[in-house]
Amino acid sequence: MTTKVDLSRIREAAELIQGQVQRTPVITSRSLDQLSGHQIFLKSEHLQRGGAFKIRGASHFVARLPEPRPEHIVTHSSGNHAQAVSLAAASIGAQAHIVMPETASAVKRRAVEGYGGRIVLCQPNERSRREVCEQVLAETAGLFMPPYDHADIVAGQGTAALELIDEVGELDAVIAPVGGGGLLSGTAIATRGLLSQCQVLGAEPLAADDAARSLACGERLPQDAPNTIADGLLTGLGKINFEILLREQVRILTVTEEQIISAMRVVWERTKQLIEPSAAVAVAVVLERLLPDEMNRVGIILSGGNLDLDHLPF
Amino acid sequence: MTTKVDLSRIREAAELIQGQVQRTPVITSRSLDQLSGHQIFLKSEHLQRGGAFKIRGASHFVARLPEPRPEHIVTHSSGNHAQAVSLAAASIGAQAHIVMPETASAVKRRAVEGYGGRIVLCQPNERSRREVCEQVLAETAGLFMPPYDHADIVAGQGTAALELIDEVGELDAVIAPVGGGGLLSGTAIATRGLLSQCQVLGAEPLAADDAARSLACGERLPQDAPNTIADGLLTGLGKINFEILLREQVRILTVTEEQIISAMRVVWERTKQLIEPSAAVAVAVVLERLLPDEMNRVGIILSGGNLDLDHLPF
Repeated sequence: MTTKVDLSRIREAAELIQGQVQRTPVITSRSLDQLSGHQIFLKSEHLQRGGAFKIRGASHFVARLPEPRPEHIVTHSSGNHAQAVSLAAASIGAQAHIVMPETASAVKRRAVEGYGGRIVLCQPNERSRREVCEQVLAETAGLFMPPYDHADIVAGQGTAALELIDEVGELDAVIAPVGGGGLLSGTAIATRGLLSQCQVLGAEPLAADDAARSLACGERLPQDAPNTIADGLLTGLGKINFEILLREQVRILTVTEEQIISAMRVVWERTKQLIEPSAAVAVAVVLERLLPDEMNRVGIILSGGNLDLDHLPF
Repeated sequence: MTTKVDLSRIREAAELIQGQVQRTPVITSRSLDQLSGHQIFLKSEHLQRGGAFKIRGASHFVARLPEPRPEHIVTHSSGNHAQAVSLAAASIGAQAHIVMPETASAVKRRAVEGYGGRIVLCQPNERSRREVCEQVLAETAGLFMPPYDHADIVAGQGTAALELIDEVGELDAVIAPVGGGGLLSGTAIATRGLLSQCQVLGAEPLAADDAARSLACGERLPQDAPNTIADGLLTGLGKINFEILLREQVRILTVTEEQIISAMRVVWERTKQLIEPSAAVAVAVVLERLLPDEMNRVGIILSGGNLDLDHLPF
């Protein structure tokens, strides 16, 4: 099952998902360069279909499904994965069923329904989520689509870094935010495969720092009571994601909630791009000058731009 | 003094300001197309230098100045014109002096100072503004740069529509917001010059609708106690701007404050582009379906993206 993900697999993924996925622009900003002391290249996945990178992995996952393809695809998510699964399921004519906590905001529900997904509510705890998921899988004879802990998801997410490097060439570092680790592990494989000297860095909220702690001790530790505005990064590292990050020698840098909010505001004000807090985590790393000055050219994967404008931190 | 503005003058302006001004992208959005029932092309001046179209007129104004050029340029503005004058003055090595009401937000002051402008505070009324302006002009032997009521400013602002039409070709309508009328009058001349069948429409807040009233009665009426979130559109129509709008048969469509706020939110959520309320006024016109269905291809000049994130309407 766990096909090894390597650069050629990511290149295949890029071919397979063409047409389902936007080639997003790379944005530069004199202001960000001045404030950070680096030359910054923003891979703009907030302009991706569904407003986040997640459609890359989800499209790749369904493109790899053997015939006959399932008529129902099931997942749990209250975030960007939910929208991506809805879009990807629709692309193969399947119905998406999204198990979502009843506390999820109306905005998120509307977005999923707008893409044709069916919402099934659960209570906002792990046990209810699992039970409802299993129930929906049984009722529909559907297939479960994992959010990050799967080779095809990782390979799909890696296509963002592939496009970034294809467009800007040499980089000294690439930074991606880390939650479950789908984006960061795919980014690591693509980046190290193309630019062997380039550092790959994960950006993580200090208030949800299981990846930093896990990589520090070489053992996958659970996410412990995360409490961050970066709601895309609440989840713990996946198994294959952890293994890839270890193998590719990815380092994790953490930032505080204040630093995340401040970075989000700087990006909004200076680039006029609406990015979500999870994307701002990676920008905070450079604005707080956590990288060595010698790193000149730095790529950042802006993971998404979905957030609830009724609950802004400023 | 009042050189007639025509298409060739706008083409010359485009040549003269090259290098000082970004060629901003034209953004399209399936969501906006669906919601409006038109094919929408967003000329993205929120991504312009200084965060608004104003640098086009200001750069053109200084590029046309005869030698010896002034060492001091003076204007009054608490908004986008202030930043543009600061940038344009710096580009010819002159010092900008910006007369600003003492009530202007810290964000706006910082922006001007960041571009090298010197701020001179006045009381927030017309009389104090004029007096302080005259004082600064006398002290510095500087030159006053008008915000809109000047042929070189109008020609410069017209370059945005020139680029838009150059990029997307045929359009059935072009919409720009109207305050003093610099952008709208320049847009009208460029658009009618290139596409004689294309309608030019001004978008105005109902709560600051002097342009709609003036064009309706054929006489330039004063702006009467404007009260709108679209703070770039508080001013009354300029003299030459009014004449151009009459001559080019521009129609004005008005929208309410609620419609402006709603349109701004739709653009933020669907395109992830941070536009200011004044820009949202033009989008509100299409989202409220004020245009006839037969108008298929509609260009909108998104005038800017500067706003105070501490005082959002949602």
